[in-house]
Amino acid sequence: MPKTILDLSMSLDGFTAGPSISIEVPMGEGGEKLHEWLFNGKTDIDKKILDELVNESGSVILGRRTYDVGIGDPWGGVSPFRVPAFVVSHSKPKKMVDGFSFINDGIESALNQAKSTAGNKNVWIMGGATLAGQYIKAKLIDELHIHLVTILLGAGSRLFEGTGPSIIELEKIKSIESTGVTHIQFRMIK
Amino acid sequence: MPKTILDLSMSLDGFTAGPSISIEVPMGEGGEKLHEWLFNGKTDIDKKILDELVNESGSVILGRRTYDVGIGDPWGGVSPFRVPAFVVSHSKPKKMVDGFSFINDGIESALNQAKSTAGNKNVWIMGGATLAGQYIKAKLIDELHIHLVTILLGAGSRLFEGTGPSIIELEKIKSIESTGVTHIQFRMIK
Repeated sequence: MPKTILDLSMSLDGFTAGPSISIEVPMGEGGEKLHEWLFNGKTDIDKKILDELVNESGSVILGRRTYDVGIGDPWGGVSPFRVPAFVVSHSKPKKMVDGFSFINDGIESALNQAKSTAGNKNVWIMGGATLAGQYIKAKLIDELHIHLVTILLGAGSRLFEGTGPSIIELEKIKSIESTGVTHIQFRMIK
Repeated sequence: MPKTILDLSMSLDGFTAGPSISIEVPMGEGGEKLHEWLFNGKTDIDKKILDELVNESGSVILGRRTYDVGIGDPWGGVSPFRVPAFVVSHSKPKKMVDGFSFINDGIESALNQAKSTAGNKNVWIMGGATLAGQYIKAKLIDELHIHLVTILLGAGSRLFEGTGPSIIELEKIKSIESTGVTHIQFRMIK
């Protein structure tokens, strides 16, 4: 059965991006350290985990700021995803890019459209932190995949900032060790 | 060489206790879920990790609130530690309890006294979150042992609240899987 998976890299102190995110510094100051396991430091284990995520996803959901800071230099003006991506946004950008749809009627609508597009594959919610937190709080996620990065970032975008105050029970599916990162997958108990 | 080890149970969303800590609710609302691996749900792996911590510690440091909420029902009026414990506190309690010293001239002084007492064993800093954060920010810790508990607590005392804004590099020593908890040990790079 297809699942809705929130997949994020997070520092031990809970940040999914550094402070002062901008077009020039798309991951925030120091935020690139959260993604070294995806680039420079990639191990076979990391590669397998990333491949599984990508291959099993039939659509992607992201926030508007993630789109705005990603679409330029990081993605070179084209979608980095092999599948359709839905951007939760109040407005459309001036220039549309193939592969992206802009959804302005809320996170639940975006998820419904993403599920419909994904068919029997999963929906991959990639963040940023604010959008991810909204999905967690609304209990619209089936699985939470955290790539826990061996660093204290000290500041930035905190994933679990507005997800309380209620307790949300989780079940650990698996935990996989790698260099500088621990990949932990949880099922949300609803 | 003896080490200064900060050892805490933390929810995936970064809380080391639930909200509304009091004498009646010493771990805060829901906070007892962070310590199930120490009590009800203890596995052989959990037991080994706890034994190592206790056996290799020559002294303990804790905050005043942790003392105040612990000394009654949880500890039954006596020290739960086999070794001397230092309480960082502005004042002394009315009734002194054997095994506890109250240190009112700061975290560094408390650490120096704890180190002197520990001799060739480690100093174990057990929290709470505020005191732990002060030690992290002051870079007085050698190792950070986090028992990452499979739950989103949603509210409470956040370990990494005031530890920024600077980046602190870590090195992962080891990560050990258990039921409902992942024990991860880090070395602080100074």
